This record gives sequence, C-alpha cells and structure tokens, in this order.
Amino acid sequence: MPTTVHARSTAGPGEPFEATTIERRDLGPKDVLIDIAYAGICHSDIHTGRGEWGETLFPLTPGHEIAGTVAEVGSEVTKHAVGDRVGVGCMVDSCRECSECTAGREQNCQKGNVGTYNAIGKDGRPTEGGYSEKIVVDEGFVLRIPEGVDLDVAAPLLCAGITLYSPLSFWKAGPGKQVAIVGMGGLGHMGVKIAHAMGAEVTVLSQSLKKQEDGLRLGADHYVATGDEGALESLRGTFDLIITTISADVDIKPYIAALKPEGVLCTVGLPSKPFQVPAGALIMGRKSLAGSNIGSIAETQEMLDFCAEHHIGAEVEVISGDQIDEAWERVVNSDVRYRFVIDTKTLAPSA
Amino acid sequence: MPTTVHARSTAGPGEPFEATTIERRDLGPKDVLIDIAYAGICHSDIHTGRGEWGETLFPLTPGHEIAGTVAEVGSEVTKHAVGDRVGVGCMVDSCRECSECTAGREQNCQKGNVGTYNAIGKDGRPTEGGYSEKIVVDEGFVLRIPEGVDLDVAAPLLCAGITLYSPLSFWKAGPGKQVAIVGMGGLGHMGVKIAHAMGAEVTVLSQSLKKQEDGLRLGADHYVATGDEGALESLRGTFDLIITTISADVDIKPYIAALKPEGVLCTVGLPSKPFQVPAGALIMGRKSLAGSNIGSIAETQEMLDFCAEHHIGAEVEVISGDQIDEAWERVVNSDVRYRFVIDTKTLAPSA
Repeated sequence: MPTTVHARSTAGPGEPFEATTIERRDLGPKDVLIDIAYAGICHSDIHTGRGEWGETLFPLTPGHEIAGTVAEVGSEVTKHAVGDRVGVGCMVDSCRECSECTAGREQNCQKGNVGTYNAIGKDGRPTEGGYSEKIVVDEGFVLRIPEGVDLDVAAPLLCAGITLYSPLSFWKAGPGKQVAIVGMGGLGHMGVKIAHAMGAEVTVLSQSLKKQEDGLRLGADHYVATGDEGALESLRGTFDLIITTISADVDIKPYIAALKPEGVLCTVGLPSKPFQVPAGALIMGRKSLAGSNIGSIAETQEMLDFCAEHHIGAEVEVISGDQIDEAWERVVNSDVRYRFVIDTKTLAPSA
Repeated sequence: MPTTVHARSTAGPGEPFEATTIERRDLGPKDVLIDIAYAGICHSDIHTGRGEWGETLFPLTPGHEIAGTVAEVGSEVTKHAVGDRVGVGCMVDSCRECSECTAGREQNCQKGNVGTYNAIGKDGRPTEGGYSEKIVVDEGFVLRIPEGVDLDVAAPLLCAGITLYSPLSFWKAGPGKQVAIVGMGGLGHMGVKIAHAMGAEVTVLSQSLKKQEDGLRLGADHYVATGDEGALESLRGTFDLIITTISADVDIKPYIAALKPEGVLCTVGLPSKPFQVPAGALIMGRKSLAGSNIGSIAETQEMLDFCAEHHIGAEVEVISGDQIDEAWERVVNSDVRYRFVIDTKTLAPSA
C-alpha cells in the first residue's frame, strides 16, 4: 500500500506553501523507505518553484538535500538496512544503460537522470522531494551518511556539498594548490570547508567583507572583497583553480586573469547571460573555463565519507514547515548563513 | 663581428616586402648561428605586419617557422654542433627565472617570452625573424630537427606543429579518443596529421567539403561540412576533444554541444569577438572551453621527435622571396594548401 505522508507544496509560481499530504509508492524489491529528518533548501528549489527554469509540475514538493534514516527496505535491498543513516540528493534514478550510466556518471545520463522532484519517475508519476516526512527511493540512489556528521548539517551535503566537492576533486584541489571560491553563500561556504580539508590554500572572493569572519573560521586563508577597486586585478596569475558559485552576471575576464597558467575557472553558478570570453584570455597560459554539475552517486558517497572523516557539515539554520516561504525570501535576498534546513517533524499542519 | 645577411622586410602596414640586409649579432658563448634553409609563413606574420595585433616595430622581418643547419657555435654551446639540422620557433629567449620558466614553460614566461620577431631582445635591439638567410639564437631556444623530416616541411612544425601538438598531447588525444579538428588550414591540417598519428579517431569540421579528399588522405576518419544545415547539431555528444583553429567569429554553442561529458573544446584560433558561452552549456556534462598557445621548448622538441618518427611534415608550397606579398594575400584568402615556405636561397635581390 502506498504510504501517505505530510508534506509542504506550492500550487504555482509565487503561491505560498501549504501543508498537504502526498503518496509514497509501495516498496519495490529494490526500494528503500526513508524517514526524512531534515531537508535543505537549495536555490534550485526556488528557481523551480517560481517557474524560472522552464516548466514546473505543480503542485510541487521540492527538496533534494535529504537526510534521514531507513524505515523499511524491499526484499532485494542489500546496500541499506533499517535504521541506517542515509541521504538522497538531486537524482533518484537514471536509465542505467547508456555509456554515462554504465561509466558510473549517472548525473550525465544520456536520457536525463530522474530528478528528486519535478521529474517523471519510471512509474510515470511526478517525483516529489524532501519537503516531506518520508520518501521511497531505489537503493542505488540512496547514500550512506557515516557517523561523524549530524543529519541536519548533512542534508545540504547532498547537493551543495557534492556540487563543490566534485570540481574540487576533479581538478585536484590539495596541498600546494591555490584555490579560490567565488561567493560565500550556501554553495561557497561548503567550498571553503571542503577545499580547506583537502589541504589547499583557500581564498574567498566575495563582493564585500561582510562574511569575512565566517570565511576565515570555516577554513579560508584569505578573504578578498571583489567590490574593492583593483582587488581582483591585484590577484592576476594567482590561482590554480577558481570555483565560482555566483549566478549574478559578472565580467568573467578578471577571474580568468586571476588564474595561473593551466588554471581552471569552473562555474557551478548559473548566470542568466552568457559569459563573454575573449579567446586570447584562454590562449595565453592555456587556461580553461569549465562548468560542473553535482556528481555521480559513487562520488557523492565519497564526498559524504570525506566530510564525515573531516567532520564537515553545512552551517545551517533549522526551520519549521511554516517558515518555508519566509526562508525562500531570505535565500533570494542572500540573508542566510548558510543553509536553511527544514525539520520534517514540523510538516504536519499546525494546530 | 656582426653578420650581414639578406632578408625581406616590410616598412609598414600594407607596404610590400623589399629585399634588404639585416645584421645578426656576434656569437655569444651560448649562441648558435643558423643557416636558414626555409621559413614558413604563418598568419601571425600577417597580423603583425599589418599592425592588427597592436604595435609593430618597423621595418619588420617576420618569420617564426625556421628550419636550417648550424653554421657556427659559441664557445660554451653544448646542445648543438656545426652541421646539425635545427629549427627555431616563436620565441628566442625568456627570463629563465620566473616560476613558469623554471617549470619549463617558457611560453608563459611571466615577464613575457622574447618573440622571434617584433620583440626586444636582451641586447635591447628588435628581434628579426626567419625571412632571412641566417639567425643567431641562444642554444636553449634552438631545436633539433631529427632525420625523417625534410627541412622544408619541418619549418611549419615550429609554430603550426607545436600549436596543435601541445593541446592534443595535454588533453591526451590517442587510441579510443574522438578528436575533432575545426578548420582545415595551416594549423588544422597539422592537427589532422598529428591526432591521427597519436591514434585518435579524427573528424574534420570544415565549412565545406572542398578539402575533404586532402583531409582523408592526411589521416582524418571523417569529414563534416559544418555549413550543411544540421550537420553540427547531429554530432551532439560525440567528441572527447575539439581543437578549433578558426579565427572567424562563430557561434561556439554547437561546438560545446558536440563534446562528450568531460570533453574539452580548445581554441588555438583567435576570433576578434569574445565567445558567448552560456554557463549551462559547460555545467551539464562538466565541459571545458580552453585555449592553448604554442608549447614549451621541451615540448617542441618532443613534437619534432614525434613528427620525425611518424614522418610528419607540413604540406607546403615552396616560394621565393619575391612571392611573399602574393603569398600573404593568398593566406588571407585561405588559398593555400597548406603552408607557404620561403626558400631562403632566394632572398638576395633579384637581378
């Protein structure tokens, strides 16, 4: 029998969240039923909920930063057991047959991976995310959350964490490497923690020094206000790797100039306008402008293990179901340090 | 005593080449005097000679694709001996002290490498290039040209060859890799030969099929006319590495789309307008847009050894000193298959 669970959903762009119930499917043989403890609020939730990223399936229950415990497992499940601490990130399925899936890069599934919400699952029904009490997910897309990181601060690792870990790992942040993180928000603050734990020398490039104290506390070695005249220009040729998390439209040239030869500037932010990239800026010094999108399931597990080993979680503000609308507004206004996490015990309608 | 040699120079933008003489410096202890046999004509010569790339020092004797034999060596020269077959490429010196130079990447010298022409040498005098009978170069910037490649077809390797070899090597073109070369000109045809010799499956992406027969003969496995409606779009997700040699302004998005996940699109061409690069095009599939500029001295030697082993030279049309103006016009009109090479025996004034 399907499981009916409390959830919060929005009926359309700009519509407030309402307490509701959604149905979770019967457990298939490979399925895991998860009691969600916390669900992070990612800016992607807001873009999707407000219809800013193409068509949205309403009513929408967002949430792809999910942490909880296993409540029940299907008959053939081998990877997880009842009581295990687990997480679910941005995808809950993929074709598993294409060259990308078989290479273990489900995030690039050639048929498109199945998003944790606002997608159509293999059962033909819309997927619904983590702003809910429980979720049913195929064991292949369920991650172990090791001891060493609490569930509330673990939840944002499933999107923000892997989004930063993956490019930092791919481009080999580590001892002797100069790494810059552009933007000190939900994504950026994870980048600082992870790059620092990897052993890199970390510089935050932020518009102002407002969050400097936090940045240094979280592991940054340097903190530069890019709004200061000439600040960015003075960093010419400094970095092996720059990860930019910002979605504002910026002049990308001074960031490319801040790379060392053979350096990589990787965006995980999604500005609305195309970058203007002079060929010469890349040619001189063999520089690269790249992008990166979450990571594979295996890499997400690797990230969780790494974060647990280094006791890395997100900096969170735990909120109740009734505070989601307000939290979204605050995310849009960059007024969060550094991630809102919904306590799913509060999702049932208020008395 | 300085050596006076015949050369061809242009007095200003658009001015025809004139027969002249230039002075080559006395041999220092580390210097090599080279009898130039052939000098390739690179499009860079033309950009510089026509003042299209900033300030040009006139009168200008261009040429940075130089092949010849050693005529004399300084007292401390150990790397080369009289009679050796040697070449000189785009640079004749660098600071040798910065982190890039000490890392063996002189092309990225933080003080700027000393160009083979249109630069100021350490002696304070303008450098003058290969459109001349002899040149004096520090032994550290003189390359060995192994047996197995004739001097006329070797000359263009010193710029066109290394420009393609370096990114093909850096991004690991080889067996099992799908490599596309965009543009079938002086640079592109070298890319086809080298990528093929490295063992990659090679596709030429050219505006039309005019040079298809040549492309297949030189080693391409496939040849696609990008001017054909939908041709590029049909290659979505195909290539591990695309090297674009074109300097025309193009829509870069379909080329990024033609990359596999984790693929790299590298430009060695220098379009005048910035590329318009949507962040999402790079983010989905972790793609990179990069640039590359010649290569180090060590890598240039590696390239020459590789080309000799595989009997790779440029496809050349040998011309006389009196044909330089006409050749430049033909290069600008893409009317060359695939590199003009000046026979320096013809540089003395015509009777």
